[in-house]
Amino acid sequence: MSYLARIAECNSHDPSRYRPFMVAGQRVGWLRRPFLDRLHDFPEVFRIDHEAVTLDPGLDCFEARSAAFEVVLHRLAGDGAISGWRGEQYPIPPSFTEPPLLQMERAAVTLFGAGSFGVHVNGYVRHDEGLKMWIARRARAKPSYPGELDNFVAGGQPIGIGLMENVIKEAAEEADVPPAIAAATAPVGAVSYCHEVPDGDFPGGLSPDVMFVYDMELPVDFAPRNTDGEIDEFYLLPVAEVMETTRETRDFKFNCALVNIDFFIRRGFLNAENDPDYLEILNGLRR
Amino acid sequence: MSYLARIAECNSHDPSRYRPFMVAGQRVGWLRRPFLDRLHDFPEVFRIDHEAVTLDPGLDCFEARSAAFEVVLHRLAGDGAISGWRGEQYPIPPSFTEPPLLQMERAAVTLFGAGSFGVHVNGYVRHDEGLKMWIARRARAKPSYPGELDNFVAGGQPIGIGLMENVIKEAAEEADVPPAIAAATAPVGAVSYCHEVPDGDFPGGLSPDVMFVYDMELPVDFAPRNTDGEIDEFYLLPVAEVMETTRETRDFKFNCALVNIDFFIRRGFLNAENDPDYLEILNGLRR
Repeated sequence: MSYLARIAECNSHDPSRYRPFMVAGQRVGWLRRPFLDRLHDFPEVFRIDHEAVTLDPGLDCFEARSAAFEVVLHRLAGDGAISGWRGEQYPIPPSFTEPPLLQMERAAVTLFGAGSFGVHVNGYVRHDEGLKMWIARRARAKPSYPGELDNFVAGGQPIGIGLMENVIKEAAEEADVPPAIAAATAPVGAVSYCHEVPDGDFPGGLSPDVMFVYDMELPVDFAPRNTDGEIDEFYLLPVAEVMETTRETRDFKFNCALVNIDFFIRRGFLNAENDPDYLEILNGLRR
Repeated sequence: MSYLARIAECNSHDPSRYRPFMVAGQRVGWLRRPFLDRLHDFPEVFRIDHEAVTLDPGLDCFEARSAAFEVVLHRLAGDGAISGWRGEQYPIPPSFTEPPLLQMERAAVTLFGAGSFGVHVNGYVRHDEGLKMWIARRARAKPSYPGELDNFVAGGQPIGIGLMENVIKEAAEEADVPPAIAAATAPVGAVSYCHEVPDGDFPGGLSPDVMFVYDMELPVDFAPRNTDGEIDEFYLLPVAEVMETTRETRDFKFNCALVNIDFFIRRGFLNAENDPDYLEILNGLRR
């Protein structure tokens, strides 16, 4: 087991299996069979050839595309092709800073291989014994990655709210962090990966995701308390213990391991003099 | 002018012009014409074809290769093909953590397109008015990049000394930093680029370099003093001013701009909510 193994788990897909998903002349996702074949049922919405899957150009605005998607996705969900319907709309832009070309139900984003964006927060405490990190355990009742370890606070980035605004909101909901503490959080970078979700009972897909990373310093006497049912427990752990768990186990949700590794590097715990894979690890954190 | 322009200046080479330089079955550099043509004068040392330039496999150990290089480089220097002879040997490994396959005079490293490794140190002060950075101006008498702005402390990584050891040594020589202060410096990552040096009076070359980055916090009352003649002046500047100079001018030595940008990102001054190029900038810091 190693940090490089964790990085490889987040980035193991075969690009030759995927066809670009084009909307308004721009690539917004990647599709593969067998899910791709289901889209032949909607010839009025998708044009499919060996090069690409293209959304009908007649759908020429955000509203028209989103409405067409809503119809398609409800039919696919009725046929059992979509798992974990969330009732949450996700923006689909060609890149983070461009306006979205459409929105779609969150549960379908990976099926279409559209990248998603999220905020991940390292919660740390300057303890007499050294730096410690607050680690969350995802609710065992959660549909995705139940019971796995997670960063202190993390959440997808919805439409119409700023990144820091989202950090403050998620920190309040997930860990009951007072806004005054959360507001001092520092943006410190971003980590990206391209994760293949295998087909199982439901079709899988591709997640070419970006996680915006934040460091939140918490007072020594602060104790997080989950308010939205998404987290079962919190643990305050010495960095060395988080390092060992990240490196030697798969206890952390796959992408949270990358956020941990980035923290270890930025804080000097993992460096070029104590890990021969250092430069390879560093390059592995951005895809 | 923009951060992306600074990054592009560090990474503007045409790979099709280069042939790999192979030693003992491993690529250690990149060569291009016209300098490559000069190596035809040494058929006992280099095998040249359209695919690659290969060091004679008969030179089968570090010592033999280094000795053969010493002879070649002295002859090239005598013919005026090498500028700025330093009298310093640089290790040439296939990667940072592998043993070097040979060593060569520092002034020839770029000619052979061999990557070099260095340490770059951000010196910062927590001032009442906010974070400030110590910036150095390279000696106007220095052969390379005279008079340009530089990171607080920076130096190439020689054979036989650790990275932190080098940081402490360079900090003492370049800025008279007491070892007790320098020892608290944190390794925080690495930045890489592939810089083409154009041909001029002397042949140019390629620098696929890695800079190991360190943050050194300095006391408010500390004043750096150069002891080795490499730095003319030091300035203590608010981060906003360093950001503007980095973004709007070419005053910083090309690669030091990247170390500054990495600092702005890790410290939250440059973030996804105040620069639309954020993700592109972030990806541009590692090649």
